[in-house]
Amino acid sequence: MKILIKDVDIIQYNEEIEVKKSVFVGIENDTIKFISEKKLENFNPDYEIDGKNKLLLPGFINSHTHLPMSLLRNVGSDTSLMDWLYNHIFPKEKTLTKEHIYYGSILTLAEMIKCGTTGINDMYFLSENVCKAAYDSGIRASIGVSINGDILSENIKQEIKQVYSKYHNLDNGRIQVAIAPHAMYTCSKEFLIDSLELAKQLNVSIHTHIAETKTEYDYSIEKYGVSPVKYFDELGYFDIKVMAAHCVHLDDEDIDIISNKKVICLHNPSSNLKLASGFSPIHKIIAKQGIVTIGTDGCASNNNVNIIEEMHIASLIHKGYNMDPMLVKASEVLKMATQNGKHIFGIDNMGNIREGYKADLVMIDMNKPHLYPNFDTVSNIVYSAQGSDVDTVIVDGKILMEKRQLKTIDLEKLYFEINKLIS
Amino acid sequence: MKILIKDVDIIQYNEEIEVKKSVFVGIENDTIKFISEKKLENFNPDYEIDGKNKLLLPGFINSHTHLPMSLLRNVGSDTSLMDWLYNHIFPKEKTLTKEHIYYGSILTLAEMIKCGTTGINDMYFLSENVCKAAYDSGIRASIGVSINGDILSENIKQEIKQVYSKYHNLDNGRIQVAIAPHAMYTCSKEFLIDSLELAKQLNVSIHTHIAETKTEYDYSIEKYGVSPVKYFDELGYFDIKVMAAHCVHLDDEDIDIISNKKVICLHNPSSNLKLASGFSPIHKIIAKQGIVTIGTDGCASNNNVNIIEEMHIASLIHKGYNMDPMLVKASEVLKMATQNGKHIFGIDNMGNIREGYKADLVMIDMNKPHLYPNFDTVSNIVYSAQGSDVDTVIVDGKILMEKRQLKTIDLEKLYFEINKLIS
Repeated sequence: MKILIKDVDIIQYNEEIEVKKSVFVGIENDTIKFISEKKLENFNPDYEIDGKNKLLLPGFINSHTHLPMSLLRNVGSDTSLMDWLYNHIFPKEKTLTKEHIYYGSILTLAEMIKCGTTGINDMYFLSENVCKAAYDSGIRASIGVSINGDILSENIKQEIKQVYSKYHNLDNGRIQVAIAPHAMYTCSKEFLIDSLELAKQLNVSIHTHIAETKTEYDYSIEKYGVSPVKYFDELGYFDIKVMAAHCVHLDDEDIDIISNKKVICLHNPSSNLKLASGFSPIHKIIAKQGIVTIGTDGCASNNNVNIIEEMHIASLIHKGYNMDPMLVKASEVLKMATQNGKHIFGIDNMGNIREGYKADLVMIDMNKPHLYPNFDTVSNIVYSAQGSDVDTVIVDGKILMEKRQLKTIDLEKLYFEINKLIS
Repeated sequence: MKILIKDVDIIQYNEEIEVKKSVFVGIENDTIKFISEKKLENFNPDYEIDGKNKLLLPGFINSHTHLPMSLLRNVGSDTSLMDWLYNHIFPKEKTLTKEHIYYGSILTLAEMIKCGTTGINDMYFLSENVCKAAYDSGIRASIGVSINGDILSENIKQEIKQVYSKYHNLDNGRIQVAIAPHAMYTCSKEFLIDSLELAKQLNVSIHTHIAETKTEYDYSIEKYGVSPVKYFDELGYFDIKVMAAHCVHLDDEDIDIISNKKVICLHNPSSNLKLASGFSPIHKIIAKQGIVTIGTDGCASNNNVNIIEEMHIASLIHKGYNMDPMLVKASEVLKMATQNGKHIFGIDNMGNIREGYKADLVMIDMNKPHLYPNFDTVSNIVYSAQGSDVDTVIVDGKILMEKRQLKTIDLEKLYFEINKLIS
């Protein structure tokens, strides 16, 4: 399939971020074939997209999600964390079947694609059904098999291996599988060590929660004598690719470890605020050339999965909290939400608009009163844009949304299926 | 004009917030005439609106704005406050003509109406042109004549009286004029005293900035020996209606004064974060039955005027900053952003959906993946909704937007006029 996007402005990450005006972008299969000032004569597209008054960006990557939690959206809002978890979320989660997981995931993916998300990093239980949903939707996905407990039993290993063999690297590598031990306080040391071994054996990434709350930090110090980051480090976790959600409660040594060992920090500003976890010191990780990405967390603790709104919130809160309006600049936030996602998938030629790069792209309709006048495109996207400004979403060279119409998800059918499940 | 909204769910503020399902709402002229379970036989509407799958709310009030600043949107982002003001904003502001003020205001009003704003509280210079824009757009507005200096000269008084006589209480009271001495650090004591006298004489409100930054707080203590709030209190300001933007740096006595004297606190979370001003202790004002409302500030320091996104940010940040997930609940935030706006306009029968109340209403399209399933309507609107979910906006019984089409503003003509001004 060859697609030609005509007369479109593009954002390109060079030494600085550059906006190139009115170019032609050719896509062949999963790859950006060319970027040129005029249409190439020898490129015969199967499909053409008009890019006038639109801006093409590398797609947004939502780096920490729990897809099926759309079915728990706005359940138990404004309660204390423990009340929320033990009296609202956990009892409801116990009732979720494979069908809930699949359709809840599709619902979240519909919302995500509508906000310009081209890739996600998920973790949940019954994850085979999450994989199927991600596969069906056309999104790029790293799906963590969420596990916890004292002993990594043969049953758990079997589940992981089954999901791995069925979905890992499926569809041109679009779906990847990761192992997701939930957290240091829900998994024993032995469990974590065995999980790491299995990840090494299968050559997959680890996705986990690290240092989300002060309670977790204190628990780690009390039980193991070290911070959660140092605990994981001492277990050897950071010798392989670890994607660490939250990273809120970090001391200076933790920040050094995360930055130096290229742990992928999954920053979830809304969730950290809503659940009163605190403010992650991402500006310090950025300053030390660490890898920071942006996630919404599950939409029960947000309560949406709008990556553009999340980017806006990430751009604001660190300035206010640290009393420095020059912290976490728009250009940094935009890269966090787009380019840095390539580390999750381990794909080098991704997250930029260049020849030979993955055609994971988002086109934003700039013809909106809130984006006008456009004195500074990057600032405009980070501080002013809305999720609903996203017009077109392309993943691996396939169109998932055009003119705001979803191509891979039938919303009416989806509501019908979910109504049956929740009534 | 009689309008009938059919088969719509409504939010009603009673002792608790209630959602009433599938009702009929009749509007006659500027007033809600009835709310009933079925269509009244003797009400013959001129116009009918289908409310199926939609939610009707009291309109959102953006309580602190500088309308013309859309023309400075994203100018000087990510610079220090003083650099931003003195090297970016002030030089540009000096070049603004009456035409910039008018068309810049209309542009902001277009964005505001698209996000469900039915009322605003503004302050800017050349305010007669802001008044005209607000009048032309159909929005409800309190427009502050922004002033500052050492001496309240006859020229300034004349300008205020001219705007007052031309616009105050125009169109059924839809437009109100206020006096807006900029801040305690840009106005002398004598200037502030004379401004207050004039406000009393004209029987209008005062709109000003109070305790926005730590610098202002320290300046006040150093120069006058008291906090900004106590300084204004000692000048007698809080004997009349004062609308105080920001209220970030408050001590416990300040919080008591603001709460007890019913100063209208205009909370601007995004601006306070972006400019690194800090976190207003609104939860303490709410706890003392003070009046808190929500504003976006000018869109140069936000950088949008999306009141629904602002409400979401207000709902999140105080939980995170004060490490308490039960602070500033969704129900409180929704009232802050809607009902509490009535204090700005001094209209008692406003900000609720009841018979005899002002027909300032917003209808939200709930048929969106990010609002489904709807387990908790209030939480859904505050935490999950987007500005673009607003379908219809009615002010004083007149339709300003329907099915997302603006009725009073021609965007293409507006862009044409602004392009001439900024090119």
